[in-house]
Amino acid sequence: MAVPDHPPRAVVLLSGGLDSATLLALARAQGHTCHCVSFDYGQRHRVELEAAARVAAALGAVEHRIVRIDASALGPSALTGSGAVPKGRSAAQMNGGIPATYVPARNTIFLAFALGIAEALEAEHIYIGVTAVDYSGYPDCRPEYIEAFQRLAALATKAAVEGRPVRLHTPLIGLPKAEIIRTGHRLGVDYALTHSCYDPDPTGAACGACDACQLRRQGFAAAGLPDPTRYAGA
Amino acid sequence: MAVPDHPPRAVVLLSGGLDSATLLALARAQGHTCHCVSFDYGQRHRVELEAAARVAAALGAVEHRIVRIDASALGPSALTGSGAVPKGRSAAQMNGGIPATYVPARNTIFLAFALGIAEALEAEHIYIGVTAVDYSGYPDCRPEYIEAFQRLAALATKAAVEGRPVRLHTPLIGLPKAEIIRTGHRLGVDYALTHSCYDPDPTGAACGACDACQLRRQGFAAAGLPDPTRYAGA
Repeated sequence: MAVPDHPPRAVVLLSGGLDSATLLALARAQGHTCHCVSFDYGQRHRVELEAAARVAAALGAVEHRIVRIDASALGPSALTGSGAVPKGRSAAQMNGGIPATYVPARNTIFLAFALGIAEALEAEHIYIGVTAVDYSGYPDCRPEYIEAFQRLAALATKAAVEGRPVRLHTPLIGLPKAEIIRTGHRLGVDYALTHSCYDPDPTGAACGACDACQLRRQGFAAAGLPDPTRYAGA
Repeated sequence: MAVPDHPPRAVVLLSGGLDSATLLALARAQGHTCHCVSFDYGQRHRVELEAAARVAAALGAVEHRIVRIDASALGPSALTGSGAVPKGRSAAQMNGGIPATYVPARNTIFLAFALGIAEALEAEHIYIGVTAVDYSGYPDCRPEYIEAFQRLAALATKAAVEGRPVRLHTPLIGLPKAEIIRTGHRLGVDYALTHSCYDPDPTGAACGACDACQLRRQGFAAAGLPDPTRYAGA
């Protein structure tokens, strides 16, 4: 077997949140040279893009690029400023359906760009931090969706046709939030650099009550680790 | 069975070329209300976007939108201005591999946006004008690729989870160019409105020698119909 002349390259989808920071740390720990990609799709929590840049630098990514997505065509979503971000929901409510923060085809668009970027970089790996345990509302985070994209990717590109299909990695998909936090903690992730809140105040402080904040807060508590998040009014 | 209260809606991917104009005419003839989508991805033949607007208006689309794609991340391609557009190639050369005009993951990105737009519009149909007969070079035009995207789409969206998956239509996929032209001619398509050339001159006139021009010219000849294309220097 030929020895590759460079460490394997990976495209890592990095939102700037807790999950994707852990994802990057795992990709690095598995020996990949990591090219991080974030998307500016008009999200109301654009502050997460600054968090992504901090995380990429802190965890040794060789590159961090931000791709602009024209999401105006994708209709209203609470994540892009139309309607209120749900607050104070119970776990049952969070898992009871598709939330108002759903953006049509978001992960399909993200993975499509990741596929093209990976081919351009001759990277054979894509890391995406979907989770399907604590938050099962999004259809495009489920294992069967990821498997379908993997099959598509094996047919979609010149690289695949030539025998170098890209491989999707979803190491977080089966982990509860507390386990994700423990994993990142072990790998030296500084979660103070990350941002999860869907509805931060103008200073970037987290609201503490949206689904993302609740899951994050409960995750640190369950992991028995201090929560470094700066909450509004705290 | 409930009678729908409106004609079925379709998202039609419209490049402004001969194939997609025929596609739109077919979608209209099949009774769809058509929302056309074109992509501005920095293609050197951006004049095709003006052709797309003309075609959408002439063929009764209810809407034509242009989505900007940040293709700088997708690396160099002869279609986006890096390197020369191949000219004067034989049919064997055209079908002998993936051409320099290949853009990584282009149709995956286009279809991902179409999927999101369709969901936002509550459209249950997507029309894409891929062909796999005269020009077999692009991996993301093959029937097996389209089938894989269809399976992905059935898992990807809230609409699909709720029992309204989008359906992909590729009515041109098995047609030679001459048959596409005959079909459009029968449906009243004015091909003078369309643009196919990958490398037009500053006035928008076609080069006559790139793969797209050659296939178009040969198609009109084989169909026995006059070619309305304005060629440079003619």
